[in-house]
Amino acid sequence: MNFELTADAVAFQDAAHRVSAEVLKANAKRYDETGDFCRESLDALGELGFWGMNLPDAYGGFDPGSIAMSLAVEEVAYHCAATCSSLTAHFLATDSVLLGGTERQKQELLPLCASGEKLGAFALTEPGAGSNPAEMRTKAVRREGGWHLTGTKHYITNGAYADFLVVYAKTDESQGHKGISAFLVDRHTPGIQFSSPEKTLGLRGSHIYEISFDCQLSEATLLGEEGQGFATAMAVLDRGRVEVAAMSVGIARAAYDDSLAWAQERVVAGKPLCRHQGIQWMLAEMHTQLAAAKLVTYQAAAARDSGGRFSLESAVAKLFASEAAAKITDSAVQVHGGYGYICDLPIERYYRDARITRIFEGTSEIQKIIIGRAITA
Amino acid sequence: MNFELTADAVAFQDAAHRVSAEVLKANAKRYDETGDFCRESLDALGELGFWGMNLPDAYGGFDPGSIAMSLAVEEVAYHCAATCSSLTAHFLATDSVLLGGTERQKQELLPLCASGEKLGAFALTEPGAGSNPAEMRTKAVRREGGWHLTGTKHYITNGAYADFLVVYAKTDESQGHKGISAFLVDRHTPGIQFSSPEKTLGLRGSHIYEISFDCQLSEATLLGEEGQGFATAMAVLDRGRVEVAAMSVGIARAAYDDSLAWAQERVVAGKPLCRHQGIQWMLAEMHTQLAAAKLVTYQAAAARDSGGRFSLESAVAKLFASEAAAKITDSAVQVHGGYGYICDLPIERYYRDARITRIFEGTSEIQKIIIGRAITA
Amino acid sequence: MNFELTADAVAFQDAAHRVSAEVLKANAKRYDETGDFCRESLDALGELGFWGMNLPDAYGGFDPGSIAMSLAVEEVAYHCAATCSSLTAHFLATDSVLLGGTERQKQELLPLCASGEKLGAFALTEPGAGSNPAEMRTKAVRREGGWHLTGTKHYITNGAYADFLVVYAKTDESQGHKGISAFLVDRHTPGIQFSSPEKTLGLRGSHIYEISFDCQLSEATLLGEEGQGFATAMAVLDRGRVEVAAMSVGIARAAYDDSLAWAQERVVAGKPLCRHQGIQWMLAEMHTQLAAAKLVTYQAAAARDSGGRFSLESAVAKLFASEAAAKITDSAVQVHGGYGYICDLPIERYYRDARITRIFEGTSEIQKIIIGRAITA
Amino acid sequence: MNFELTADAVAFQDAAHRVSAEVLKANAKRYDETGDFCRESLDALGELGFWGMNLPDAYGGFDPGSIAMSLAVEEVAYHCAATCSSLTAHFLATDSVLLGGTERQKQELLPLCASGEKLGAFALTEPGAGSNPAEMRTKAVRREGGWHLTGTKHYITNGAYADFLVVYAKTDESQGHKGISAFLVDRHTPGIQFSSPEKTLGLRGSHIYEISFDCQLSEATLLGEEGQGFATAMAVLDRGRVEVAAMSVGIARAAYDDSLAWAQERVVAGKPLCRHQGIQWMLAEMHTQLAAAKLVTYQAAAARDSGGRFSLESAVAKLFASEAAAKITDSAVQVHGGYGYICDLPIERYYRDARITRIFEGTSEIQKIIIGRAITA
Repeated sequence: MNFELTADAVAFQDAAHRVSAEVLKANAKRYDETGDFCRESLDALGELGFWGMNLPDAYGGFDPGSIAMSLAVEEVAYHCAATCSSLTAHFLATDSVLLGGTERQKQELLPLCASGEKLGAFALTEPGAGSNPAEMRTKAVRREGGWHLTGTKHYITNGAYADFLVVYAKTDESQGHKGISAFLVDRHTPGIQFSSPEKTLGLRGSHIYEISFDCQLSEATLLGEEGQGFATAMAVLDRGRVEVAAMSVGIARAAYDDSLAWAQERVVAGKPLCRHQGIQWMLAEMHTQLAAAKLVTYQAAAARDSGGRFSLESAVAKLFASEAAAKITDSAVQVHGGYGYICDLPIERYYRDARITRIFEGTSEIQKIIIGRAITA
Repeated sequence: MNFELTADAVAFQDAAHRVSAEVLKANAKRYDETGDFCRESLDALGELGFWGMNLPDAYGGFDPGSIAMSLAVEEVAYHCAATCSSLTAHFLATDSVLLGGTERQKQELLPLCASGEKLGAFALTEPGAGSNPAEMRTKAVRREGGWHLTGTKHYITNGAYADFLVVYAKTDESQGHKGISAFLVDRHTPGIQFSSPEKTLGLRGSHIYEISFDCQLSEATLLGEEGQGFATAMAVLDRGRVEVAAMSVGIARAAYDDSLAWAQERVVAGKPLCRHQGIQWMLAEMHTQLAAAKLVTYQAAAARDSGGRFSLESAVAKLFASEAAAKITDSAVQVHGGYGYICDLPIERYYRDARITRIFEGTSEIQKIIIGRAITA
Repeated sequence: MNFELTADAVAFQDAAHRVSAEVLKANAKRYDETGDFCRESLDALGELGFWGMNLPDAYGGFDPGSIAMSLAVEEVAYHCAATCSSLTAHFLATDSVLLGGTERQKQELLPLCASGEKLGAFALTEPGAGSNPAEMRTKAVRREGGWHLTGTKHYITNGAYADFLVVYAKTDESQGHKGISAFLVDRHTPGIQFSSPEKTLGLRGSHIYEISFDCQLSEATLLGEEGQGFATAMAVLDRGRVEVAAMSVGIARAAYDDSLAWAQERVVAGKPLCRHQGIQWMLAEMHTQLAAAKLVTYQAAAARDSGGRFSLESAVAKLFASEAAAKITDSAVQVHGGYGYICDLPIERYYRDARITRIFEGTSEIQKIIIGRAITA
Repeated sequence: MNFELTADAVAFQDAAHRVSAEVLKANAKRYDETGDFCRESLDALGELGFWGMNLPDAYGGFDPGSIAMSLAVEEVAYHCAATCSSLTAHFLATDSVLLGGTERQKQELLPLCASGEKLGAFALTEPGAGSNPAEMRTKAVRREGGWHLTGTKHYITNGAYADFLVVYAKTDESQGHKGISAFLVDRHTPGIQFSSPEKTLGLRGSHIYEISFDCQLSEATLLGEEGQGFATAMAVLDRGRVEVAAMSVGIARAAYDDSLAWAQERVVAGKPLCRHQGIQWMLAEMHTQLAAAKLVTYQAAAARDSGGRFSLESAVAKLFASEAAAKITDSAVQVHGGYGYICDLPIERYYRDARITRIFEGTSEIQKIIIGRAITA
């Protein structure tokens, strides 16, 4: 066991830091205020190849290992959580192709995803079913030498901005989990309807959409093999949860850094806030939660690279880091007092952005179910 | 000891409920989305006399007792927390006059405040001093048969909409607390400058302002006697904290009611959410916290009517109820899952609105200091 | 609504305070150290009539109302939680007779219970069933003009010291809840076997037993009517939970008072502990939790006297007060530092004694189920 | 960064596991019940060389690295926390020699400590001063070619059983921290008085003593150089806190393992406890806290081996792991219900034993001060 980062990981983190601090940070407040999509920030990351950090060289990526990737995701989230959300949603889509696609699909699509030319979306969740595949209503039936896809997905990050969507649908209603397949759906396929972007508490620069489908798809849109969709989605979500954990760490670290600086500068009753013992203890607890959140995240990242199952580690990291981010951003508001409530400072944005991490890609409650099942299996 | 409400209190609560459910509820979402000031809702309350519920008959009010008043404040907050915030800010101003003014000031001003004709603002907090009078920089010096007022206040609810402001200022820098006096400042006095309203995490329909003063005031603007400002402000805040507690209870109850209804309707994995034991326990905890928050609030209200000191009860109520509101609105988001994060439902608004209750009129940390001092005195 | 205690309630509390401070306090440490049964302390309470405070005049008691009774239970627990546990276990037994017995049974038995001559025990819980009546295995079958009782109960407070036991048993296995009846079993009935008292984390002066039965009972031992046992037990537990809440408040108040005194006396780094802000805030939180715990308890007591159902209020009070007692006694240990860990001071005993309140008469988890069902009914 | 244990670390952990599972586990309940000192268990560890796992080869130890050592400490605590406490107290004494002693002192004393022949005690804390050196009253003055030591220490683990005590005392009252020196005091030195062992909430097999000194010491008893005592003590405590963290993890893991097994075996309402969602979520939270506690502990251990300062990492590990152990052992009691409260099962012992970890070697509050200072330095 060894807690030192490799030089490569540090270099990768530094590269992510530079672009984030230069470009993303400057846009973050504007995206939040206007609700504009985080286009420029995503593109800046794409130009430097960060859209492909989950992909191997063979497909145009430069996968630096999951720990380095977590560090990079953390940097992105530190400076703009909305951009981070859109980026990791793209990873859910490209991970779906990587894990579930045919060799040909991977070779055709992934290099364009890695280079920043094609943005993906991951369309699993449904209004009536959440992420529960047993209740999935979207279905694809064979018709005219291809597939006819009907149904409605919602809370789909990147939605109308995506060049392609990985859509999960039932292809055999008699088969339960094994009756689910995934499809690569071009954004311009006739019969797709996008809602307006939903207004949300946070992550306002990363839009989510309701999308309805009534489309004829070619045979070639089937991702990998029929009936493999559920297995692909579950494996993708295991990976995605590590990224949510890293995103949580990034937001929490931003809130912590700002709070620490504030508490050192702001003088109350004749001494800096951080010298008031009650505030000192709050900062110490924030630091401690953050330290632990980092470690569970990196451990899950290491497990992700180990080749075995890591649903448990991934759920632990997601649960712990997102709950820690909630506590830390809440304390950050409190340390700032009234200044934490006004939009001039980014503190209240951290607080809003962090809130989603306990909800998406499986709520904290779902993580407890996953953990509970794993430990009693 | 007796936990039954009087018929009068119930009737008063019912009246507050009716106007809130009819008018305030309809406006709440719009105010939040547009950031418009809660004018119509405040006026609807004013027409029915609710602007004077903190005032005795003698001054045009119909003070129904603090418990009934808390119930009414709770109803207002249940339906629109922003309106509640502007209303209770008005009470801080009129309480200042009631507790600190001369008989003539009370007779001239309070009936207009009670009838909904004149709106007040309470200007104590400063950018560099918070609510700490020792660091107050705003000052008033005798000049030309009156006072010259200079300085800057911030986070002043109602600000530019108020017809008059109760401004606290140092009139004798050599005297500490006893060197602070209050002034009744007409909104149109030359030399007042209002900022744009601050953008805030929540309570978006209840604007807060930075206000700077460089004004000549007449002798008659001095509220009551010179040097009594600090005592007045502290007594006003004791009263105000009971109202913040009631506001917290109102927001929390709205979040709880919506969560309970949602958990009974929303079916997941074949049964309503509320039948999933983990969710059932969350709802039970929300109920329990709410029940306790109500009781500490009503106890503080009773103490407020008892005639003695009630700083301790008031701080306990404010601390407990605001922290409970934070837990309950947070759980409400979680119970709603993704639906709790989007702005279609009021859940995320409750979450944002509740957040201020731990901050304004003394943060939770300040309440702990007040309680700590009281119990070790 | 009114938070003032009546003069009668205060007088009753004072009487309970006097005997507790004089007698119970002196014995508490010894009972805890030696594990001796709290005989002398129980008897001292009996001599003054406190064994009958749950009973009306008609049966020799002097029921002062549930709020006054809660205050008295609180006083007893403040000075010796073990004695309180034995006393309230006696109330579970006599409440069973009061609510479920025939007029004749009440007149014969209750006056002796009120006067301190006969001690009762309440035998519901079983090793394999907990308090779940559906899984109850103890049964009574009609035989020889009476009943033959077989089965095993455990965790029965007062057990071998009781003069009579109220035993709940299945009399009709085909009937579910309606197949349960209660029996008044004399302690000397042939065929009762008592275990040694169980060693427990706390409440060491209040013994619990495993008791097995293989007894022939007369017809007259049937408490009230056949099939009414479950209804009686549930109503008794609703009442009992208010007493557990009061007991929790009593222990918590003792821990709080000692901590406050300690923090004012103990000087660290040149000033009393209570002047260190972090400790000050801990004390403020303890005070706040205690204040809320008292109120939910008194509200449940008031509900108990109102004549209607109060399962919800009773479960809320039990849940909140016991959890608050856990937090407060835990903080008390922490405020005392190393002194909180050694047995010279009563702090570690409060911590151990309080721990049971989240478990007996329905764990906190069971209370959440009761509350959850009540609010979604 | 790498989360895999080395084969050597695993082998070391396995060796610790074997002796602990065979010998320590069998004695643990008895030590707790009788209050006997954990002699046999300590000796069993000593025979296998575990008394020297903090020491380099050169002094007879076989320091396997701090991570392996943490794993071994965890194993010891898993099976008997009292033995673990006595063992780590011995490490505080031998670390004092290792870090502060002269080469000659190290060569003479440490091999005997490593081989299990000499047991040490670390005497820093005082009744009036806690661990605050500024308030230390014990002093040593030069007399008759040596030192005269007077004063009183308390809460000294191993106390009367130790062969030698490392006693910290003021040798120059004018110098503050730099006026503190350490002494190697033979247990049989005339003028040492040991109290009876203190009765404590937990760790009953690991005795703590009040010790008073009025002794003449030879010059050779001065540990290292005069005035270095404070620096030595602080460095020793940094190391010791990693061991307390590991001890916390060990107790917590025992409580978790037992709870998991119990929840899988115990059937309530027709299904195992672990299938009741509320309980499932408690187990998931226990697992998550434990996972994070392990990681912060191992990270601090790695930092300890890195050669630099690690006060921050050590305080974070101690704070987080001890608080996690408190939550986990508390949940273990709750998962077991009534069975968690009786002494037949070890659950209530875990609960008592874990409680000290938030107190000794610096309370959680002291850790927050250390962390707070480090992050704002």
